[in-house]
Amino acid sequence: MNYIRKHVQRMAAYVPGEQPKLAGLIKLNTNENPYPPSPKALDALRAAIDGRLRLYPDPSSSGLRERLATRYGFGADQIVIGNGCDDILNLCVRAFCGECEKLAYFWPSYSLYRVLANIQGATQVELPLDENFQIRAHPPLLAKLDGVKLVFITQPNAPSGVWLPRVEIQRVIEETDGVVVIDEAYVDFASDNCLDFAREHDNVIVARSFSKSFSFAGMRIGWAVGARELIGALDKVKDSYNVSRLSQLGAEATLDDWNYYQHNVKKICATRERVGGALAKLGFFVYPSQTNFVFVRPPATRTAKQWVDGLRARSILVRWWETDRIRDFARVSIGTDEEMDRFLEATKAIL
Amino acid sequence: MNYIRKHVQRMAAYVPGEQPKLAGLIKLNTNENPYPPSPKALDALRAAIDGRLRLYPDPSSSGLRERLATRYGFGADQIVIGNGCDDILNLCVRAFCGECEKLAYFWPSYSLYRVLANIQGATQVELPLDENFQIRAHPPLLAKLDGVKLVFITQPNAPSGVWLPRVEIQRVIEETDGVVVIDEAYVDFASDNCLDFAREHDNVIVARSFSKSFSFAGMRIGWAVGARELIGALDKVKDSYNVSRLSQLGAEATLDDWNYYQHNVKKICATRERVGGALAKLGFFVYPSQTNFVFVRPPATRTAKQWVDGLRARSILVRWWETDRIRDFARVSIGTDEEMDRFLEATKAIL
Repeated sequence: MNYIRKHVQRMAAYVPGEQPKLAGLIKLNTNENPYPPSPKALDALRAAIDGRLRLYPDPSSSGLRERLATRYGFGADQIVIGNGCDDILNLCVRAFCGECEKLAYFWPSYSLYRVLANIQGATQVELPLDENFQIRAHPPLLAKLDGVKLVFITQPNAPSGVWLPRVEIQRVIEETDGVVVIDEAYVDFASDNCLDFAREHDNVIVARSFSKSFSFAGMRIGWAVGARELIGALDKVKDSYNVSRLSQLGAEATLDDWNYYQHNVKKICATRERVGGALAKLGFFVYPSQTNFVFVRPPATRTAKQWVDGLRARSILVRWWETDRIRDFARVSIGTDEEMDRFLEATKAIL
Repeated sequence: MNYIRKHVQRMAAYVPGEQPKLAGLIKLNTNENPYPPSPKALDALRAAIDGRLRLYPDPSSSGLRERLATRYGFGADQIVIGNGCDDILNLCVRAFCGECEKLAYFWPSYSLYRVLANIQGATQVELPLDENFQIRAHPPLLAKLDGVKLVFITQPNAPSGVWLPRVEIQRVIEETDGVVVIDEAYVDFASDNCLDFAREHDNVIVARSFSKSFSFAGMRIGWAVGARELIGALDKVKDSYNVSRLSQLGAEATLDDWNYYQHNVKKICATRERVGGALAKLGFFVYPSQTNFVFVRPPATRTAKQWVDGLRARSILVRWWETDRIRDFARVSIGTDEEMDRFLEATKAIL
């Protein structure tokens, strides 16, 4: 007797980046922000640690939704809050794409899309990015969108870190009969964003995260914005109490201390440019990044795997995938300047 | 163009109990624990409010799973942690029951089962409880289990609060080819539990919550225990980082202060017996409760609706459903003794 759905039996689970319990490592493997949450956000959390935790949270996270609505210029009813951005992506699958319906995603990109499609039993349509990891919305690709219910686009893309041209995304939006989810988890490190597509098209959702630019990966807060009808559907399928009291409150306090985070984002972008330049000088191929990581290929003297293993031997974790099209590269999260100096020194020693 | 899955379009969302923002209300409507989390659990949370919140949580909540395994005598690999018990119930649907497959639940019970079945597009099989809201596993009911992939049993049942005989549950487990999920959200207020079924049968999962007996509704922690194969499937379909750092840590500290919560549970059970007795004296029909609430029908001079409205006019919230078979009743969460005295006084005034 096998009790488990066939789709679930067959699938491989998503493999998150390693979360080591050892101290003293330089952890550049899961794109966390190297700077702590703002002192004000931490103070707000501390002030909320009391008997009220016995009470359920606000099921609609209304305080947080209102702050986001004001900040980004949407209606609060165009916003839904998730238990991390992964929760949002999962809700999109559940609301917009049924079993045996078509779910499309660009590849290589965030490997969770595949896993979510598998769990749902959706039919997967892989849209290949070109040799520069760019969308080219030419007829053969657009033909693949026929009958698709849901398309995931990562903007800027991961793991490449590159910005995808808006005109190509617009083409995909216009040529799709289904919903387009633009996953902007990293967008605060970019010089542009696609929120206007969510404003102008009734089939676009933009998904965002507090895990990267807002230093709150440990608190699990994501959100989505789009047309009321789409957001209403996400609201229907989400768990009623999907975001804890502390996560809601911490996210509100985060938005109230906007400049603190903007300052950190600028620092991270500056470090990213410096590290990218240094790696290029060492002979690496470096994709132009609009995120808080760089996606790089070492010079021919070392394979990516050798380099990554060498870093690990020096207590520095970066992310490498044994996957078609990307196994020659590794993804390096941008840490503090001091961490990145140690990373660069180690890299020089390995080469 | 309608972008939303038909199943989702057609369904009604789950309606959680009101979470009012007004202060000064006596809130007996969502079965929260009237006593705060333990001072030690709150201290542990406070000590964790620092820069580490920038880091992702442990994806497998291993510290919490190990503590639960030790406490309840299972292997840590037989336990999975959810973002509240609702997350666990949802994961069970996703892992065990596909679109158009049969999902059974007893009725009246927790209305979320229906909603989860609707989201999945599963075929619903309603198993009626008898006139005393009890399972009677007689042949007509057992015949309905034919081909069922997943059965939800609430033990003790909600909203009735009654304990369901183990022998009837065992009958259901043995007669089902699918998975039986025993939802024990309220079981710490009962004098027995069904964990042994999860130990002995390869098709049983017991689901538990930190929201009631552990005073942590605001933190969203649920868990499930069962055969390794079943738990492995839940682990595959859950979000990688489904439980925040603080929630994991708060739950661990909760288990480390076991006696504090046992003491509160005893107090709540004593208050429940006193309130049940007082209501019976006033002419109410009171179901024997093994939970932290009582399910009661007012004497003939007032309808349940009139009584509930009268309480609300006196700033006391209880839960009433305009639903077949239960509209003559209301569910009253057990608060502190002082809150329940005010509730009883208000009730006398209304009758």
